[in-house]
Amino acid sequence: MTSRWSASEFEERLRAIGVERYHDKHPFHIRLHTGLLSQGQMQAWVLNRFYYQKSIPLKDASLIGRADDIALRREWISRIIDHDGGDVGQGGIERWLLLAEGVGLDRAYVASCEGVLPATRFACEAYVRFVRERSLLEAVASSLTELFAPELHRTRITALLEYYPFANEVTLSYFRNRLVEAPADVAFGLSYVLDHAQSREEQELCLRALRFKTDVLWAQLDALDYAYVAPGRIPVGAFVPLDRS
Amino acid sequence: MTSRWSASEFEERLRAIGVERYHDKHPFHIRLHTGLLSQGQMQAWVLNRFYYQKSIPLKDASLIGRADDIALRREWISRIIDHDGGDVGQGGIERWLLLAEGVGLDRAYVASCEGVLPATRFACEAYVRFVRERSLLEAVASSLTELFAPELHRTRITALLEYYPFANEVTLSYFRNRLVEAPADVAFGLSYVLDHAQSREEQELCLRALRFKTDVLWAQLDALDYAYVAPGRIPVGAFVPLDRS
Repeated sequence: MTSRWSASEFEERLRAIGVERYHDKHPFHIRLHTGLLSQGQMQAWVLNRFYYQKSIPLKDASLIGRADDIALRREWISRIIDHDGGDVGQGGIERWLLLAEGVGLDRAYVASCEGVLPATRFACEAYVRFVRERSLLEAVASSLTELFAPELHRTRITALLEYYPFANEVTLSYFRNRLVEAPADVAFGLSYVLDHAQSREEQELCLRALRFKTDVLWAQLDALDYAYVAPGRIPVGAFVPLDRS
Repeated sequence: MTSRWSASEFEERLRAIGVERYHDKHPFHIRLHTGLLSQGQMQAWVLNRFYYQKSIPLKDASLIGRADDIALRREWISRIIDHDGGDVGQGGIERWLLLAEGVGLDRAYVASCEGVLPATRFACEAYVRFVRERSLLEAVASSLTELFAPELHRTRITALLEYYPFANEVTLSYFRNRLVEAPADVAFGLSYVLDHAQSREEQELCLRALRFKTDVLWAQLDALDYAYVAPGRIPVGAFVPLDRS
């Protein structure tokens, strides 16, 4: 039997996954963050990423729905409230729709999720299913891409403000809020995983869960890049930007 | 094709299910509400009912985890917060534990769910599974036993105060709170079901879902009655009151 890693070695291995394969390094994000996206490409990103945003509360509620640990439920529920908001016009999903309007998309069209790439749906649904079907520990571990998100959000806010005329405090409010929300969430998630992975085998399951999650994020950008950048083959039924129609 | 019932006829049929088979009419409840339970029988009820309380947030989070409708999620989340509370020492589950201590049970023993009747587990798990697996409409419809709960809670508060020395504002706080929380929940749930059952077939699915839920509640009392009242055959591994051991 291989022995359990120390908390610090385990944490280092979790963080190494971000260095190796978090989607900040994806060519599509690099284009986004160096001002190279056309408006249509930006719209395609915002539209598809909306489907991911929309999936997040379903994933989080599914996780709570399996958690016998009341402390975990009490902590995790703020994620749902952050995304859904307490009332009409509030919450992260609403803030993402403000971004969508800012890049020139029709709000109702975005909310309908028509035009989303099938690959985006498949990836997001795989994530929700993972959280419903794997162990609670793996479900929590899969959330730990949040370890890597704040730096990406900071880079993004700076880049959007520098390169894209639609960027302002309203359209970027989603990212600003995540800078505040994510660190509290991830501190809890990380310490939960460090504490609850009781064996080397469980620690390795957590690493796999986090790699799986980086795949979920990466695959969405691959599909966007293929459809809207190079070769730019938009599948039948998916969103066609005005500059391509 | 049989035509859809009007909203008022449909609501009448939903309410008729309560009249026919809600667990306020179960012999065990009648004993409870007429002061006939021994302390051991009261303990058995509180202990087993805790397992149901514990299952409720899992059921509600599982429902939210399947709800694409953000308005439904925003409304439903208060149920989880009502039960779990915002912090240690708060919420309906905690209030049920105060009742458990009041009837002379050890808090940790109750929280561990050791000693719960297998039939209680099976019934509660069937409910959680129903909400995870059936349509969202059926899941919401199954919550509508709340239509019938306030009257039962009022009867219970009066009866407990009249017949049982442990009853006071602390031990009965669970029921007092439900009198406030349940009416808001059920108003939303009822109007959701009346609006979203679009065909006679869907309306009949809702009636079946509500009947199923009354079965979940009734079966728990059957098992309690059989184990602790008559014939009083406690299954191996289940809680044995001091007055029976």
